Amino acid sequence: MNSKKNHSVGIITPQTLHFDGRVQLKSGDSLENFDVVYESYGKLNSKNTNAILICHALSGDHHAAGYHNTDDTHIGWWDNLIGPGKPIDTNRFFVICTNNVGGFQGSTGPASNNPSTNQPYGPDFPMVTVEDWVTVQSMVADRLKIDVWAAVIGGSLGGMQAMQWSIDYPSRIKHSCIIASTPKLSAQNIAFNDVARQAIRTDSEFYDGRYYEKNTVPSRGLRVARMLGHITYLSDDLMAEKFGRNLRDIENIGFNYNPEFEVESYLRYQGDRFSQSFDANTYLLMTKALDYYDPAQAHGGDLSHAMAPAVCDFLVISFTSDWRFTVERSREIVKAIHDNDLNVTYAEITATQGHDAFLLEIPDYLNVFTAYMDQVYECTGIKSEDSL
Amino acid sequence: MNSKKNHSVGIITPQTLHFDGRVQLKSGDSLENFDVVYESYGKLNSKNTNAILICHALSGDHHAAGYHNTDDTHIGWWDNLIGPGKPIDTNRFFVICTNNVGGFQGSTGPASNNPSTNQPYGPDFPMVTVEDWVTVQSMVADRLKIDVWAAVIGGSLGGMQAMQWSIDYPSRIKHSCIIASTPKLSAQNIAFNDVARQAIRTDSEFYDGRYYEKNTVPSRGLRVARMLGHITYLSDDLMAEKFGRNLRDIENIGFNYNPEFEVESYLRYQGDRFSQSFDANTYLLMTKALDYYDPAQAHGGDLSHAMAPAVCDFLVISFTSDWRFTVERSREIVKAIHDNDLNVTYAEITATQGHDAFLLEIPDYLNVFTAYMDQVYECTGIKSEDSL
Repeated sequence: MNSKKNHSVGIITPQTLHFDGRVQLKSGDSLENFDVVYESYGKLNSKNTNAILICHALSGDHHAAGYHNTDDTHIGWWDNLIGPGKPIDTNRFFVICTNNVGGFQGSTGPASNNPSTNQPYGPDFPMVTVEDWVTVQSMVADRLKIDVWAAVIGGSLGGMQAMQWSIDYPSRIKHSCIIASTPKLSAQNIAFNDVARQAIRTDSEFYDGRYYEKNTVPSRGLRVARMLGHITYLSDDLMAEKFGRNLRDIENIGFNYNPEFEVESYLRYQGDRFSQSFDANTYLLMTKALDYYDPAQAHGGDLSHAMAPAVCDFLVISFTSDWRFTVERSREIVKAIHDNDLNVTYAEITATQGHDAFLLEIPDYLNVFTAYMDQVYECTGIKSEDSL
Repeated sequence: MNSKKNHSVGIITPQTLHFDGRVQLKSGDSLENFDVVYESYGKLNSKNTNAILICHALSGDHHAAGYHNTDDTHIGWWDNLIGPGKPIDTNRFFVICTNNVGGFQGSTGPASNNPSTNQPYGPDFPMVTVEDWVTVQSMVADRLKIDVWAAVIGGSLGGMQAMQWSIDYPSRIKHSCIIASTPKLSAQNIAFNDVARQAIRTDSEFYDGRYYEKNTVPSRGLRVARMLGHITYLSDDLMAEKFGRNLRDIENIGFNYNPEFEVESYLRYQGDRFSQSFDANTYLLMTKALDYYDPAQAHGGDLSHAMAPAVCDFLVISFTSDWRFTVERSREIVKAIHDNDLNVTYAEITATQGHDAFLLEIPDYLNVFTAYMDQVYECTGIKSEDSL
């Protein structure tokens, strides 16, 4: 893949779609008069058969590939997988990534103005779920005249959306790619999320979610939440390999509370950076969306039954060292797909990087992904005509 | 073991020893003019050969068995293992448990008065290490005229003390029992501890550790720290079994931030209880003592070399589902003991309870422990004479 590493989609300008109408949410609430920001890479072919939807995870957004200006160091979060000649090849596909509602990077979310109060929504922003995001993404598809996605692709929380697309809009999706994901969170997963939420919600600067009006940021809580989350994204082995018990810029331990071990300074840096850029209410919403996702729940816990509407082909990928969403959770998805006599390609990638592996350039992973995307491209039916 | 469950050491009155002298600490600082509170169970035999030292872990204290008055519901933290007819049989042994200095339950610690300022020590309390606690415990042994411990026993952070006793005072310990412990923390272990510390230290009520004078308690940080710690004490499987995705007293999810899943309400309860009773500065000190412990470090990372002074027999016990201190870490200890041609009994107990297993009545665990303590008793050399 190295020869393709420098290929980029280049400078990208995000687009915003406005929706006047009302969308009914799973919670019973509704959302109206909202924006969805998105980016697109590549070109829609004449038959509109080469569109791909990328779904982002907890801390992701619509900026999946390329950069925003020439001196922009903020490269898209999946730039190593999306671009000309890359696994999600923008010479072949028209790739869309939306920022989910509830976000803060352009789509309407808790930090946006609530038209009924002329103040930021804050805690009044409705709880949004994986199913709601899929609904909104279908409205985006309508607007962009994409009847059918060649593929819907996502990792982690994004994988849940890819899975839900296969259930909710079976006629509008040809391939669902579910990476490093799970059909539902475990008690331990929920527990970690709740600790993160409690750290944020008990921050004295949180003000019940109305910190915008107070001109404060619950950065201490966000920082702790991110540090904690980060541990769960990495494997124990990777942390041992990367940091071990190495000390940071000091010869000996100093018997104080400064960051002494490298792992401490790494995590605090990650926490600081995140707390300066991420919206706390969005973080809370995203973690709840994770906790609530459980398509089998309405089917007596039977995931195969929940997936009965699906007709598309599937790619499922898991990583051996992912202890957040283990390979066993992906196998549950594969079993449910099998039970419905649908095609599934399943790969358990041996990797030390933990949950984060889905964001990284791991050769076996990219090879499986590339091979599958070749199949997806075959299905667009216009291999020669529309190639750039 | 059930027939012995109701046997208790009964009502226990903690004792306090005062030390005028100065003890040199590993950090280079020193501590003088300090108290150590302890409890004892059973009776010292005429040859002083049946004394056992119990070392407590992160959130433990000297109250290891029995209760403090007739309506006391606060039973000692290892009451299921210590008592008449129990694995650590108080009909046979004279059992001591001290509260480590740096604690807040009677031994001198950050909440105690600093004679040089007449204010609580707070952040001026010196950093204390596993090695320092062993030093102080040896001073307690001197005072109580215990030349040699029949056994030093501890789980987790307590196991580190049992291990260090074998290195620092080889002639004063016959058996070292190291349970659910590790010869050093991993990067992931340190990372979890640092997140907990950051939660406490960034609490707006922490005041750089001088919250006593402010009449505040950094309870929000302590609560988050405890919730997080608690997740690492339990196994993923146990949490799945105990809580799963069960909802708490509600029919359906409410799409809000109340505790909805049972696991959330359980953890918040644990966090609340802990934050109302535990001293934050002590928590910080204890986690640093965990992070710093690494006897092999001064020996180029060679644990066998570090343990070369040891001459006692060892019992090492680990639990299969303990992901905080895995069985591999115990095997490292066993290897180092083997390398020194010393006797070791090693048991990997199959258990679902995670790190907390060492506190629980697990039949295989208790059987191994009981059998080993029979051997310890044989070594007291006065089986018939002093039995009660």
